[in-house]
Amino acid sequence: MTVENAPRATSPAEGADGDDGKARHRETLLRALSAIAKRDYWSAFPEVPSPKIYGETAAADGLAAFEAHLDTDFPLTAPGSTGTVSTERSPYGLRVAVGYPHIRDLDRLMAAAQAGIPAWRDAGPDVRAGVCIEILERINARSFEMAHAVMHTTGQAFVMAFQAGGPHAQDRALEAIAYAYAEMTRHPAQARWTKPQGKRDPLVMDKRFTVVPRGVSVVIGCATFPTWNSYPGLFASLVTGNAVVVKPHPAAVLPLALTVSIAQQVLAEAGFSPALVVLVAEQPGENVASTLATRPEVRIVDFTGSTSYGEWLERNATQAQVYTEKAGVNSIVLDSWDDLRAVCRNIAFSLSLYSGQMCTAPQNLLVPRDRAAEVGAELARALEELLGDDSRAVEVLGAIVSDDVLARLEKAPSLGDVVVPSRSVTHPAFPDAIVRSPVVLRVDAAEAEVYDQEQFGPIAFLVTTDSTAQSLEIWARTASQHGAITAAVYSTDPAVLDAAERVAWDAGVALSCNLTGGVYVNQSAAFSDFHATGANPAANSCLTDAAYVAGRFRVVQSRRPVA
Amino acid sequence: MTVENAPRATSPAEGADGDDGKARHRETLLRALSAIAKRDYWSAFPEVPSPKIYGETAAADGLAAFEAHLDTDFPLTAPGSTGTVSTERSPYGLRVAVGYPHIRDLDRLMAAAQAGIPAWRDAGPDVRAGVCIEILERINARSFEMAHAVMHTTGQAFVMAFQAGGPHAQDRALEAIAYAYAEMTRHPAQARWTKPQGKRDPLVMDKRFTVVPRGVSVVIGCATFPTWNSYPGLFASLVTGNAVVVKPHPAAVLPLALTVSIAQQVLAEAGFSPALVVLVAEQPGENVASTLATRPEVRIVDFTGSTSYGEWLERNATQAQVYTEKAGVNSIVLDSWDDLRAVCRNIAFSLSLYSGQMCTAPQNLLVPRDRAAEVGAELARALEELLGDDSRAVEVLGAIVSDDVLARLEKAPSLGDVVVPSRSVTHPAFPDAIVRSPVVLRVDAAEAEVYDQEQFGPIAFLVTTDSTAQSLEIWARTASQHGAITAAVYSTDPAVLDAAERVAWDAGVALSCNLTGGVYVNQSAAFSDFHATGANPAANSCLTDAAYVAGRFRVVQSRRPVA
Repeated sequence: MTVENAPRATSPAEGADGDDGKARHRETLLRALSAIAKRDYWSAFPEVPSPKIYGETAAADGLAAFEAHLDTDFPLTAPGSTGTVSTERSPYGLRVAVGYPHIRDLDRLMAAAQAGIPAWRDAGPDVRAGVCIEILERINARSFEMAHAVMHTTGQAFVMAFQAGGPHAQDRALEAIAYAYAEMTRHPAQARWTKPQGKRDPLVMDKRFTVVPRGVSVVIGCATFPTWNSYPGLFASLVTGNAVVVKPHPAAVLPLALTVSIAQQVLAEAGFSPALVVLVAEQPGENVASTLATRPEVRIVDFTGSTSYGEWLERNATQAQVYTEKAGVNSIVLDSWDDLRAVCRNIAFSLSLYSGQMCTAPQNLLVPRDRAAEVGAELARALEELLGDDSRAVEVLGAIVSDDVLARLEKAPSLGDVVVPSRSVTHPAFPDAIVRSPVVLRVDAAEAEVYDQEQFGPIAFLVTTDSTAQSLEIWARTASQHGAITAAVYSTDPAVLDAAERVAWDAGVALSCNLTGGVYVNQSAAFSDFHATGANPAANSCLTDAAYVAGRFRVVQSRRPVA
Repeated sequence: MTVENAPRATSPAEGADGDDGKARHRETLLRALSAIAKRDYWSAFPEVPSPKIYGETAAADGLAAFEAHLDTDFPLTAPGSTGTVSTERSPYGLRVAVGYPHIRDLDRLMAAAQAGIPAWRDAGPDVRAGVCIEILERINARSFEMAHAVMHTTGQAFVMAFQAGGPHAQDRALEAIAYAYAEMTRHPAQARWTKPQGKRDPLVMDKRFTVVPRGVSVVIGCATFPTWNSYPGLFASLVTGNAVVVKPHPAAVLPLALTVSIAQQVLAEAGFSPALVVLVAEQPGENVASTLATRPEVRIVDFTGSTSYGEWLERNATQAQVYTEKAGVNSIVLDSWDDLRAVCRNIAFSLSLYSGQMCTAPQNLLVPRDRAAEVGAELARALEELLGDDSRAVEVLGAIVSDDVLARLEKAPSLGDVVVPSRSVTHPAFPDAIVRSPVVLRVDAAEAEVYDQEQFGPIAFLVTTDSTAQSLEIWARTASQHGAITAAVYSTDPAVLDAAERVAWDAGVALSCNLTGGVYVNQSAAFSDFHATGANPAANSCLTDAAYVAGRFRVVQSRRPVA
């Protein structure tokens, strides 16, 4: 299937409740269930921002819809709210003054969220999956509007914001729905149990097995991928019958406000409480996430962000099932190659994409000392080719998301020998945008205190080692001790690739081998690649596997004798 | 399928490694996979202690084997051990002086447990499932020996010790293996991913998905069901590639020592490290469970026991996935009936079985005030019929497991009006056995402080209420606030049964309706009934569902471009 003949996005005019909608949602669900079992390529939501797919006026309409949110209060169902908060600023310099309801009465919020649960639970897995897929279709139809919202909160370049913030996030959501649906329906809804009793009549019981939710689920979003990282938890919790409280990062509220608004509309149209999905925006420093995550009503917490706060949640929100994605140190082991230029082009793109502000971006390039100069020179050339022209560079780099990242980048040259310096890039359309190319620093294997911690942003280390064996050791140690979401190895020696795979198993990290073409280590494809593993400190769970969804609901049985 | 033509137990002479064994294990696994999907009756291990099934000399051989353990040191692979501990006493008065290796060097223990993991991981799900089923077959062949071990540690009567400690526990283990196998194999081991690129060549990647274990798993056993409650966690963790440290209750070590010994033998014969399953026996008060459960190597903890300690584990072993089964208050709502005699016979058996020392035994019998006298009288009659004859009574009651339970029973009459008194029963074969019939106390709905807490042992309350509506309210409240593993309702009114089912969903408790025949509320059948739900304070997980197994392993992927 090519992107061009992928299923058409639905226009909002096609209702959630029509028979056509139900049949289409069912078909989407079945295809997603097949995809997660096969793990070949599949996508439900086209990633190309093309007028042929999304409509001739979609781009202009999306921009207009985005602009219409600016300098207004965003309307949402918000139980317990008083006044509004406005906390965003665009990394591109655009004024993004959107007011969101400020929920301060959490008792009222929780009561409203819980009140909607019984009807949502009683609707059953099929109805819930249909409603969730309708939400996704409506979100998909607004992908251009979402792209601008993601771009002007995260600093992603437009096409990336469209893809990662739109269809890729939607695919990840659908994947989570499919996993959850598979787990909810792995048991029959009812069964007859007949136990033989020798010559006497058998014992016969009718049994019913009902999926019940855990309660209220809290999703804590991040500043860089507000939709992509939040959707799996949000939709996995919602489709399993829970109410979901979405706590966005103060810097990236609009993408989740749009999402919550669409979810509330679809829920209400389908006869359910819109308060099943609520946005809790906050002032920076209000720390409402901690208050929410430890409420007794809250039984599920999903979090993406810092290691320190993720660990705090794991240790303190013990009344809940906590799913965290935290920081990590991603490595690439460079052993041997046929075409170093192709190797470095691939790596240069991975370092540059969204200025390395991805949890999947590589940081440590581990290379034997005698090959380091060659790699450094080729990498410098590849970065120059990719980023030499400002107007092309900004489409890869996007903008720096925060002052913290900028400060870290500015201090970075003191950490090692500069192999490739960072440079300031001028955005042709947004003169106030802060855009920087990556810095590459050469450090020795002995300087572990430098490269052992995550330097989030466009900062990479060319770590010189005694040998590939030492490179593998360093990778294994950093991933096991400090976490890693991705890893890559380049080698022409099958024994090295095998050794790398064993390190990947031991350190619990996803491995990419010899990437030189159009696949990059920091990309993971919905329905095929697992994002994180839950087997090292970078994350305690994986997006998305059975472990990620199975604890979001319980099965309650009833049984009665058959007369 | 009748019990009599169930698959034959394997004699230890049939090795783990023969092709016959492999094919037979495969067939057992496939039947178990089918059973957990259908949830009709199925059992792999015959529950009847019959010579026709287990062999003409099995009973005598089992008794001799049990007696041979007495006054000896039990041989086990025990890394880090120094000396022995001996902590058991038989509730029947038999001297049970068995010495177990005393492991004090936990660093050495952990190193030995971890050392065996890579080879066990690399063997893959099919080999591991085969080895685990071979362990179960060997355990099954020693069910008579196990029955005596369970009887003389827990106080269960012989037939119950045989069934619950033997075949029923083995079935529960197989069920956990099947669930874990299903989850480990829901993804293909490898897949080819082909992403179309319009008119260009598609992107093609080969991907490999490898199941990796979490690390070391700790199983903390209880005094009443040392095998039945420990096997699901033990086998779910082992089959998913983890090493398992078994920490038995000091009062019930022998059943788990036998289990560990057989597991070590089968693992060694199959070429794996016997230290993958280790027994850590302790002196009372040594508190090794807390030390073990919070070790960084430990990533999974399974626990059955008190609420206070279970909650301590949930709050403190945050480096691990913790599965707990704790205390609860089980209710029966008595609304209306066709045959009160049949109702009370069924309830009398549930109250009496193993002296109510079951987490599934009912405690609160909720009945409208105007029907309480009738129910009390009929229940007294049913208990007298069931337990009036000492030699028959002991086969139902077993013996009191501990001084704590006895003290609680002796103080119980002060808690309410005695409807049925407890009496002392003389065991014809074991004159020192402490055997007591249940006490039934009448209390009013207003006396919540009396019946709101678990009175573990043969203590039941006839709670008089204003109405069935109030009965349902009290049941809902106690289950939600204090936990419950089982519940029952008796009513001839479909509306009451429906209301009860909604309470069951809200309170997350398994419901039995109108049991009057040969099924009892405290029984749950492997492959069909879920034991606990994880949806109320009595347990944070269910034995066994997908949520119980899916977090015991992770999937690590590797991918490489196809040339």
